[in-house]
Amino acid sequence: MAKSTINFGILGCADIARKVSRAILLSQHATLCAVGSRTLSKAQKFAADNNFPATAKVYGSYEEVLNDPNVDAVYVPLPTSFHIKWAVLAAQKKKHLLLEKPVGLNVKEVDVILEACESNGVQFMDGTMWMHHPRTDKMREFLSDAQKFGELKSVNTCFTLAADPNFLENDIRVKPDLDALGALGDVGWYCIRGILWAADFELPKSVIALRNPVFNKAGVIISCGASLSWEDGKVGTFHCSFLSNLTMDLTAVGTKGTLHLHDFIIPFEEKKASFITAVESGFKELVTGWEPKPSEHTVMTDLPQEALLVREFCRLVGSIKNEGAKPEKKWPTLSRKTTLVLDAVLASIKKGFEAVEIVI
Amino acid sequence: MAKSTINFGILGCADIARKVSRAILLSQHATLCAVGSRTLSKAQKFAADNNFPATAKVYGSYEEVLNDPNVDAVYVPLPTSFHIKWAVLAAQKKKHLLLEKPVGLNVKEVDVILEACESNGVQFMDGTMWMHHPRTDKMREFLSDAQKFGELKSVNTCFTLAADPNFLENDIRVKPDLDALGALGDVGWYCIRGILWAADFELPKSVIALRNPVFNKAGVIISCGASLSWEDGKVGTFHCSFLSNLTMDLTAVGTKGTLHLHDFIIPFEEKKASFITAVESGFKELVTGWEPKPSEHTVMTDLPQEALLVREFCRLVGSIKNEGAKPEKKWPTLSRKTTLVLDAVLASIKKGFEAVEIVI
Repeated sequence: MAKSTINFGILGCADIARKVSRAILLSQHATLCAVGSRTLSKAQKFAADNNFPATAKVYGSYEEVLNDPNVDAVYVPLPTSFHIKWAVLAAQKKKHLLLEKPVGLNVKEVDVILEACESNGVQFMDGTMWMHHPRTDKMREFLSDAQKFGELKSVNTCFTLAADPNFLENDIRVKPDLDALGALGDVGWYCIRGILWAADFELPKSVIALRNPVFNKAGVIISCGASLSWEDGKVGTFHCSFLSNLTMDLTAVGTKGTLHLHDFIIPFEEKKASFITAVESGFKELVTGWEPKPSEHTVMTDLPQEALLVREFCRLVGSIKNEGAKPEKKWPTLSRKTTLVLDAVLASIKKGFEAVEIVI
Repeated sequence: MAKSTINFGILGCADIARKVSRAILLSQHATLCAVGSRTLSKAQKFAADNNFPATAKVYGSYEEVLNDPNVDAVYVPLPTSFHIKWAVLAAQKKKHLLLEKPVGLNVKEVDVILEACESNGVQFMDGTMWMHHPRTDKMREFLSDAQKFGELKSVNTCFTLAADPNFLENDIRVKPDLDALGALGDVGWYCIRGILWAADFELPKSVIALRNPVFNKAGVIISCGASLSWEDGKVGTFHCSFLSNLTMDLTAVGTKGTLHLHDFIIPFEEKKASFITAVESGFKELVTGWEPKPSEHTVMTDLPQEALLVREFCRLVGSIKNEGAKPEKKWPTLSRKTTLVLDAVLASIKKGFEAVEIVI
């Protein structure tokens, strides 16, 4: 194991970094090698609170993490506005990059980051954890099954959470100088990714924001939605918000089948997750009930999805480090596509809800 | 019971009339008194196949049903294009009117029908069965609970069915001269009603059709959708289609709670129906799961929703007939509101997906 273990450095002590630190330990393919904060004492406390090994380095700056020759890869959970600076610097320092979402404030930033990773030969992956749950693979199998699901016709996603007054006033995600994309970048990111995933990552032709987006006093989006349409007739809709009860729905309807789930981003439970499929649903005589009814499928996992994310990232980094492989392009491509749609939603809002064409 | 029994006449032998005939028998407040078809033999076969009592009259025309003095009320499942003629005539003949949805081709027609009912003192109700299921009352309680659900913020509905080639070629619902509203009038009706129901029948301010509606060769809609927006910031979206697997979703998200169900129009089973609620959902420590999780609620019913519809209709007709009560205005109001939104969706499609204001 020693050879394939990837040494992680963490930039910043964000709340989400606690979850990812645990995931790094759980993954069994990585070690917590270093953490840096602008305040040394914060980094020390973070390391102590999150089971960092005694050998881990604790730094009073992000630069020192990037300059640490023992660090193979960095996890960057900094506010979105700081991504471009630190992600590019990390890549230049030849650190593989696990970057929180949203990846950048717009696709131009994302392209700068991805280009830095590519030209420095480092692996890029964003922090969209649900992509790595084995349930997601099982659901993909269903959506790809021409006999059971057929052709995707419509997909709806929703990610809302009821932020408390303190969050709405003070959280990073409602500050224009830190996370200017607000709810669209935070929860909307998952809605868009879910729709693109259901569409097998085919980009829509055009995007139209729904009316009634809500902005805070500083002009940051705290609730919005959009409809997406594809050349072949598919449609998608989503709603994301910091103002409603925690909800995470994905419904994909195909010519022959339907997929439903209510916890696609964070499964209700850590070790098992379910989804509902319906295949060639019909009615009983006199339309008094359904035959067949939808069925529930449960997928078990020893490791939580975030540890599986770390494991997949480490597998790719290990291939580069130990076998001279090239970085895997799938993950940066998905980040870029998600950002393209996110940009289009924002552009549509700015243009008074006009249709915005997706330019690849 | 004899005094309160309502004598039903049925105009036409549509497939749905078989289900409603059974409902009339099951309701225990009504009798199958007469059926009329343009072909006498069809009416005879219908009466024989659907357990009409020996005393029931069988007619070779719709007029004869309306002229039968024993008939208190008529159920009209004719193609939408014929609603205005036969509904108005029924009202003029002082027959209470249970009319299939969509009620008319547009709100002008609906207003003519409702005016005829009002001026003739007859009860009007449309055939939207799910409104009468006891589950719907339980769900309404939840949506009305300020502590558990809070304020509605978003609602999404979907009703799709996979029509076979014969349906897409020959069914009444794809013929411009019979049911010109196509999938919007047939399945979209329920999507719109579901959204309005969740919004406690407050009409949206504006409606915008989604891109990519599908028309058949004759110009009838077979797939479409729309987004709705309210003055107070609520949003709704729906998708309806004859081209995808049978799916009936309703998700309503409030500030404090969420309602989910996958069979809101026709419950999976006849005698019991479920829905899922989530109240003040949150995450476990480190966001590794949900606490509390959503919970499922099951509602039992002795009578299917269509029999409860008939029973409610008969209760209102009985009050008018036996106690001199006035017709209940709730049901015609809901039909009219549903049609107003339906008209707006159609207008938005015709205007190239512009926003259409709802004019009451």
